[in-house]
Amino acid sequence: MTDVSANSAPKYVIGVDYGTLSGRALVVRVQDGAEVGTAVHPYGHAVIERTLPGDDKPLPPDWALQHPSDWIDVLKTAVPAAVQAAGIDPGDVIGIATDFTACTVLPTTADGTPLCAVEGLEKRPHAWPKLWKHHAAQGQADRINALAHERGEPWINRYGGKISSEWEFAKGLQVLEEDPEIYAETERWIEAADWIIWQLSGVETRNRCTAGYKGIYQDGSWPSEDYLEALNPGFKQFVAKIEHPLSALGDRAGSLTEQAAEWTGLPAGIAVAVGNVDAHVTAPAAQSIAPGQMVAIMGTSTCHVMNGAVLAEVPGMCGVVDGGIVAGLHGYEAGQSGVGDIFGWFVDTQLPPAYHEAAAANGQDPHEYLSELASKQAVGAHGLIALDWHNGNRSILVDHELSGVLVGATLATKPEDIYRALVEATAFGTRTIIDAFETSGVPVDELVAAGGLLKNTFLMQVYADITNRPISVIGSEQGPALGSAIHAAVAAGAYPDVPAAAEVMGRVERAVYRPDPSRAKAYDALYAEYRTLHDYFGTGTNDVLHRLRRIRNEARR
Amino acid sequence: MTDVSANSAPKYVIGVDYGTLSGRALVVRVQDGAEVGTAVHPYGHAVIERTLPGDDKPLPPDWALQHPSDWIDVLKTAVPAAVQAAGIDPGDVIGIATDFTACTVLPTTADGTPLCAVEGLEKRPHAWPKLWKHHAAQGQADRINALAHERGEPWINRYGGKISSEWEFAKGLQVLEEDPEIYAETERWIEAADWIIWQLSGVETRNRCTAGYKGIYQDGSWPSEDYLEALNPGFKQFVAKIEHPLSALGDRAGSLTEQAAEWTGLPAGIAVAVGNVDAHVTAPAAQSIAPGQMVAIMGTSTCHVMNGAVLAEVPGMCGVVDGGIVAGLHGYEAGQSGVGDIFGWFVDTQLPPAYHEAAAANGQDPHEYLSELASKQAVGAHGLIALDWHNGNRSILVDHELSGVLVGATLATKPEDIYRALVEATAFGTRTIIDAFETSGVPVDELVAAGGLLKNTFLMQVYADITNRPISVIGSEQGPALGSAIHAAVAAGAYPDVPAAAEVMGRVERAVYRPDPSRAKAYDALYAEYRTLHDYFGTGTNDVLHRLRRIRNEARR
Repeated sequence: MTDVSANSAPKYVIGVDYGTLSGRALVVRVQDGAEVGTAVHPYGHAVIERTLPGDDKPLPPDWALQHPSDWIDVLKTAVPAAVQAAGIDPGDVIGIATDFTACTVLPTTADGTPLCAVEGLEKRPHAWPKLWKHHAAQGQADRINALAHERGEPWINRYGGKISSEWEFAKGLQVLEEDPEIYAETERWIEAADWIIWQLSGVETRNRCTAGYKGIYQDGSWPSEDYLEALNPGFKQFVAKIEHPLSALGDRAGSLTEQAAEWTGLPAGIAVAVGNVDAHVTAPAAQSIAPGQMVAIMGTSTCHVMNGAVLAEVPGMCGVVDGGIVAGLHGYEAGQSGVGDIFGWFVDTQLPPAYHEAAAANGQDPHEYLSELASKQAVGAHGLIALDWHNGNRSILVDHELSGVLVGATLATKPEDIYRALVEATAFGTRTIIDAFETSGVPVDELVAAGGLLKNTFLMQVYADITNRPISVIGSEQGPALGSAIHAAVAAGAYPDVPAAAEVMGRVERAVYRPDPSRAKAYDALYAEYRTLHDYFGTGTNDVLHRLRRIRNEARR
Repeated sequence: MTDVSANSAPKYVIGVDYGTLSGRALVVRVQDGAEVGTAVHPYGHAVIERTLPGDDKPLPPDWALQHPSDWIDVLKTAVPAAVQAAGIDPGDVIGIATDFTACTVLPTTADGTPLCAVEGLEKRPHAWPKLWKHHAAQGQADRINALAHERGEPWINRYGGKISSEWEFAKGLQVLEEDPEIYAETERWIEAADWIIWQLSGVETRNRCTAGYKGIYQDGSWPSEDYLEALNPGFKQFVAKIEHPLSALGDRAGSLTEQAAEWTGLPAGIAVAVGNVDAHVTAPAAQSIAPGQMVAIMGTSTCHVMNGAVLAEVPGMCGVVDGGIVAGLHGYEAGQSGVGDIFGWFVDTQLPPAYHEAAAANGQDPHEYLSELASKQAVGAHGLIALDWHNGNRSILVDHELSGVLVGATLATKPEDIYRALVEATAFGTRTIIDAFETSGVPVDELVAAGGLLKNTFLMQVYADITNRPISVIGSEQGPALGSAIHAAVAAGAYPDVPAAAEVMGRVERAVYRPDPSRAKAYDALYAEYRTLHDYFGTGTNDVLHRLRRIRNEARR
């Protein structure tokens, strides 16, 4: 084991966080988790939604692709820049780990070459990596779900009853059905989270987290050939493209190759950890991996991850995976499709000039200004209830075709009223998820906030009041990258396991926000109204949201 | 009969339209209805909502009063100014008539002196005229309605099942219960519509229109003493304060007094017509008094008036009155509490800077700009449905405590989408009213638009498509004042009756907007969604709007 005692020479690890639009590298001191340098590299191709690079044929609606070379560029630029910013000797770096958006998945040859990099295939859309938010496989997902329920497949309820169109099987089936040649060329169908580790270490590995949450790996097996054949005869052997021994999170995938050492400026041979996912890796960074500690990574959307002592099937959750967050516990995941995105939409498209001007005059951004105004209101004083489905609903309804609702507006309704109602709606959404867990026998004792929204103290207090739970706050602005660094330290042997590393290198401030009993009580009444509307609009009592979407799509055609 | 043949010397009449914030005088040529001069006088005291003049004691919430001297000032300033603008000899004016907001009602002595002008009473709020939008008598209205239904009073269903808090009996009962001394001093309880005629002619008259729609005069009688006593023993004799022989619309109330001649600069002795109401008087101005011609006066709110050949009880209408619009027909009234006000609220509080800037760059006001953008959309392309209850619902729910709803918003929803949905919601509201009439056996063949909104051609086309009816347009920008002038001409004997005068003096362009069959069909589906939500939120299936309002009111206390 590497000596990381306080009086030894400092050693460092690198955590690399692959987001939707950029990758960030963070240099962390192994002994104490200090963040000593960081750098960001925006992807040159960002999200590919309109046309493929060098092509002018429009992609179909709801497609979202990425360019693998952008990911390599993060290793070439952000990693050395972070090391330089840290002012450390690269020779003192003992390991590297990454986390990635998921399910971001790509087809490769047997040696890991992306099909989009194979000559002659670069203009085939299905040869490219599909980003998590590629939503064009909904038809496939619908069939996957219907057939699973029809056949009583044992794994379906591990995913709240629904496999998402974002995940490996739906996206893979889409390739088969829309471009069978590309499907036939696909020797490996691999998460970007694992692919990047292959590039760093030269060996293919597969991590338990994405195999469980985004693949359909449960209780030691994949969906059966029978089931896959019934979906589509050509899909029978799909598992051969993803099958591989799985690695536990924090395992050493291998050693940094000469090639990757050249890209990053790091020493060849240092430890490379197995792949991981941005949300899940944040839990150890926030020292919140005990059962009942729900970590909410709150940004444009929110992802909830939490360990549970027991295995339960929670309706509408994204999944439960053995060792999906840390080895030895049942890792649960849930999510809200739109959170900060909804507030951003409101400020961008619904806020009148006087508010922008007043915010600027105060030296505030509009969110700060609206939050300040909204914070002065008593609970319920705006008379509004909103449903936070402007980007669909991930949990607990698992329905991306829902949309937002606002109830109670009068001629006296002001922007800060609607803003507060939208903030509250997202908190009611979180409470709905918590309730689903608790009803299913998985207690939620504490919320731990990470992500960009935690800087909004008004919003955090609303969440504490509405969920009636204390809210702890991660002590890092780079939760995912710090989480990756913790895994790098474990892979390098500096700590015996992730919990031990998290204990030293993670950071959290406990119970920064506490619920106010009278506000919590007042919110109970509004939450009851939210749930009534939630069920009315979300569970088919009045299916108007789906009908409006269908009418909309036909009208736009 | 006055000679108004084409080759006689031109004669003139004056129509005076008393609105909420100002009064307008219009000089009209009797021979052909030409509008030859007009002038407006804004009320010096506007709407008295905070404190009485010369007092600093705050009025309770929902109060709205006016100052009678402001109404006299219209006669003193706007009438001579209009005559001067017309460049005519005042000696050629043969009659004057007025229309008023209603129910605007005041307590007077037996000689017509407003109690607020009686020394010692000027600081008593209940001594002042209550404007139509005084909404502080809701408790009284609720009891009036409950008792009427309990006793099976025959008149209640002539008012769609609900007497409004805005009307004579609710406001009168409020005076009794909150200031019994003022109630006792009230020798006459009189509509401003009739009071102003008393000032012009020196004689008290009462018109059939306000007695029917705002009083509770049906089939030759008022509510019984038994009923009134059961409401409140002190209210038993209330009818004595309003009882008076009723005059038909277009009747001559009397002759212009010396005093009124001095105010107006008109010849003493000319005809003064009996009082009338702004909405109702517009129907003859638009030559739309045949059964099935629904005149919609569309502004901040919308009032619908229509004659019917039969007497029917239409749920949720404001009232049906024999001769309430013209003698010999059943006059129906319905209304929408918020129309232009909702669009104004949206533009004032929800439109982002870029839209204001783009509108200004185009030389358009924001409504024109939004209408132009919205007009390019196919029906349903925005994916939204709104309920137009931001100012409550007058017809058909008769519930001022409802509020607005917006369903279907996504992160891609733009301001023009919401604007269009709000315009459509008000048109769905009109269709709901039309459907209530037709379901009750009162056909609606044609919509005739008057008021400020008719200049928005996009909106008018939406109304044609949604109601699936041709829309005619009044040919005057001063519909109510022209309607009053028509009644002045009849009172002066220039025409035998209102229909004959309207035929010559009124103006309308028929079927300016025609429904597009494919859009009308597409709107049928959206209207079905509107009605489902209308019933869900409006008829108690989910009473969330009332609960939110109660929570709001408590939170603000």
